[in-house]
Amino acid sequence: MGKNKQLRLGASIHGVGSSHTAWRHPDIPADASVNLSFYTRQAQKAEEGKFDFVFIADGLYINDKSIPHFLNRFEPITILSALSSVTSHIGVVGTLSTSYSEPFTVARQFASLDHISKGRAGWNVVTTPLEGTALNYGGRSHPSHSERYQIAEEYLEVVKGLWDSWEDDAFIRDKESGTFFNPLKLHRFDHEGSYFSVQGPLNIARSSQGQPVIFQAGSSDSGRNLAAKTADAVFTGPDSLEEAKQFYNDVKQRAAAYGRSPDEILILPGIGPIVGSTEEEAELKYREIAELVTPEKALQYLGRYFEHHDFSQYPLDEPFPELGDFGSNSFRSTTDRIKQRAKEDNLTLRQVALQEATPRTAFIGTPAKVADLVQQWFEEEAADGFIIGSSVPGGLDDFVEQVLPILRDRGLFRTDYEEDTLRGNLGIPIPVNRYAKQKDTAING
Amino acid sequence: MGKNKQLRLGASIHGVGSSHTAWRHPDIPADASVNLSFYTRQAQKAEEGKFDFVFIADGLYINDKSIPHFLNRFEPITILSALSSVTSHIGVVGTLSTSYSEPFTVARQFASLDHISKGRAGWNVVTTPLEGTALNYGGRSHPSHSERYQIAEEYLEVVKGLWDSWEDDAFIRDKESGTFFNPLKLHRFDHEGSYFSVQGPLNIARSSQGQPVIFQAGSSDSGRNLAAKTADAVFTGPDSLEEAKQFYNDVKQRAAAYGRSPDEILILPGIGPIVGSTEEEAELKYREIAELVTPEKALQYLGRYFEHHDFSQYPLDEPFPELGDFGSNSFRSTTDRIKQRAKEDNLTLRQVALQEATPRTAFIGTPAKVADLVQQWFEEEAADGFIIGSSVPGGLDDFVEQVLPILRDRGLFRTDYEEDTLRGNLGIPIPVNRYAKQKDTAING
Ligand SMILES: Cc1cc2nc3c(=O)[nH]c(=O)nc-3n(C[C@H](O)[C@H](O)[C@H](O)COP(=O)(O)O)c2cc1C
Ligand SMILES: Cc1cc2nc3c(=O)[nH]c(=O)nc-3n(C[C@H](O)[C@H](O)[C@H](O)COP(=O)(O)O)c2cc1C
Repeated sequence: MGKNKQLRLGASIHGVGSSHTAWRHPDIPADASVNLSFYTRQAQKAEEGKFDFVFIADGLYINDKSIPHFLNRFEPITILSALSSVTSHIGVVGTLSTSYSEPFTVARQFASLDHISKGRAGWNVVTTPLEGTALNYGGRSHPSHSERYQIAEEYLEVVKGLWDSWEDDAFIRDKESGTFFNPLKLHRFDHEGSYFSVQGPLNIARSSQGQPVIFQAGSSDSGRNLAAKTADAVFTGPDSLEEAKQFYNDVKQRAAAYGRSPDEILILPGIGPIVGSTEEEAELKYREIAELVTPEKALQYLGRYFEHHDFSQYPLDEPFPELGDFGSNSFRSTTDRIKQRAKEDNLTLRQVALQEATPRTAFIGTPAKVADLVQQWFEEEAADGFIIGSSVPGGLDDFVEQVLPILRDRGLFRTDYEEDTLRGNLGIPIPVNRYAKQKDTAING
Repeated sequence: MGKNKQLRLGASIHGVGSSHTAWRHPDIPADASVNLSFYTRQAQKAEEGKFDFVFIADGLYINDKSIPHFLNRFEPITILSALSSVTSHIGVVGTLSTSYSEPFTVARQFASLDHISKGRAGWNVVTTPLEGTALNYGGRSHPSHSERYQIAEEYLEVVKGLWDSWEDDAFIRDKESGTFFNPLKLHRFDHEGSYFSVQGPLNIARSSQGQPVIFQAGSSDSGRNLAAKTADAVFTGPDSLEEAKQFYNDVKQRAAAYGRSPDEILILPGIGPIVGSTEEEAELKYREIAELVTPEKALQYLGRYFEHHDFSQYPLDEPFPELGDFGSNSFRSTTDRIKQRAKEDNLTLRQVALQEATPRTAFIGTPAKVADLVQQWFEEEAADGFIIGSSVPGGLDDFVEQVLPILRDRGLFRTDYEEDTLRGNLGIPIPVNRYAKQKDTAING
């Protein structure tokens, strides 16, 4: 028989995301970023659509110029744990930084979420772009872009090691003999590295999916390598189909170079589809959101990527200013892209700022048109699926109710959950416990 | 009219707690410490009983001699967030260590839990007794008992400061004018201390109860001072009514010396009531649990308090060994009590170990007898309420179904929730935002 390869879908559900102004739309709750019913409704809508997971982005530094819904928002571990109680099949994936946290605690919180959700947890590993974060964490200086990735790599080694502390059959719990666990199946990790020294064992077992799913977001050269080496899925934000294909192909090749099967790492661009019953209706929805953006807010939005640079000092309608290396220790892949495009397309500061603040998505139009685009990106190997974060009111509902039925008719997306765990739904392998592995090797060898 | 002063009640619901052997009882799920239905059932039973809160203890270090249900257990922040979704009025209180965490992250996670639960969060501040914890957190050496309390004090200053980052009316969210917040009501904390340097502001607002409720557990001199200065409630484990009265009086006096009203700090001894329809039935329930304890396990249990000291090297039936200062950098108040009692009562090692591993609670007997004891402790100012952590199967159910009705008849405990927040139910004040306060002073002065 053979089933078509299936799309993987996530829903980004935190407030109105990174818009400075979308909260002003009459149909969007202005307090969405701390509105529990808003999160719950979206998670349940995504589960109704049989999405693979919900996704929560995050950040650890704000100032009075920050994006409104970043000023006051739920912390990922807490909101995902709460949502796991009101959903049953959808994965719960949250962002947490390796630059400002302790591996023992993070390993434990995700493992606990994984148990509580019965094998549905995922961790989006980020390295924290914003320099100001250091001021909230002991005032050490913000590590450089390349050091952040070195830290992240060692960090993931530690966390994955801790997650294997207990082999799957370690807990015997035999009431008769009084044997609670088999000490041969308990392992200390005893890590001593450049950045971390962590003994273990972790005080929680593996879940039914073995280990939480590792997502990675960060698209620079170092980011791609980290993803290729350690991630199960990559969250990316390509500008065009061409760029997405290039990225897809590049990361899959890097994964292969690390000895992994390219199928084991999923490339998931973030897209913000805008669906209307006609092209015009979709355009109108876009304009309603885009027109809320003032040049002042657009400059603030842009400035955040460049270490909160004050762009109001430059003339709005002259060519995008020459910034040299500025921004490369922060959101490097993003600032590189912005500078490059400004140069190539000869854009003014106003054009760049407005484009960044309210990017006009390619995925706009009738349900059939949006479905076509999704199918095209999928079939042309630009994406294994998508993370949907629609900026217009009801954007997720429109996608679930109008676009998904078309994709289902085409055999591209499930009609119901067939597996219980996030790994199961994503079609990626359950990692075998490293110590169980060693024994197999010993026996076979 | 005037209502009687009301008892405050919490339920300690994590697995079978610190017993080495209770998991072997036929009526206890052997996997209780990672059994979501077990936690949910208990939280819902406590809410049915109109308890003020559920309580989760915690630890950050295990080895192959650890208490079975500590080897593999849910992490507090995650399980409490999940439980907040399946309850509506009961408080959710979790343990987290100030010696091995970052104030910005902890402030944020508890504030987020406080929002998600709509004002029901509490934090049990502990300083981490187990030395091995340092091995899981970067290998720096475990801070001394007194330094741990110095860290804790500064830590609480920072967290409470971060929690006040936003005044209660800071978020305007006026769609018309585009004003999201009032910048005059946003405050950086700018803390530079001996242990922490944290700028702020925190990226989450205050909840309807202002700030999460601060619990403190730690009964040494330094522990009592920290509680008196900073806590809303104290979790304590007294041995007798006399000791409880002494503790109660002492902490209330210390609070008064810090200029606080003694009513603002609640003293909540942990008790493990065992209820039977007759005295004999209650005794039988106790014996079923007590007889599971072997001398070997009892020695292991005892050893944990003394930095995992190996007590099997001493003869079981000779006087408790002379240990000098040993243990005083770990669970100091507990090891002091053990040494003192062994000396006073001339106990053998076997007697001490068995007594510690399965303490025979005073709160054992018929529902009326247990209710009498609760009332006596309450009225004689040994307790403002209790944290119930029954070691026998169905212990919480028995208390809710058989003891609470009697306490209600006597007007000592609520018949229904009258408030929405944990602070409201506990009858303790909502802290006014410190910046709002300053302004009032300025206006009045
Ligand atoms: C699609 C995408 C999503 C991201 N999401 C987050 C996030 O939620 N929180 C965060 O701190 N950083 C996030 N990042 C930032 C990265 O973690 C990284 O620090 C930054 O992009 C610099 O790395 P790069 O140059 O490799 O992209 C994201 C990056 C990308 C490309
Ligand atoms: C009743 C009680 C409960 C405690 N609960 C915990 C706990 O759940 N986790 C923890 O790490 N320490 C816990 N502690 C330990 C304290 O945080 C503290 O580190 C230890 O008791 C030493 O301090 P002390 O000498 O002031 O009591 C508890 C202590 C008491 C008295």
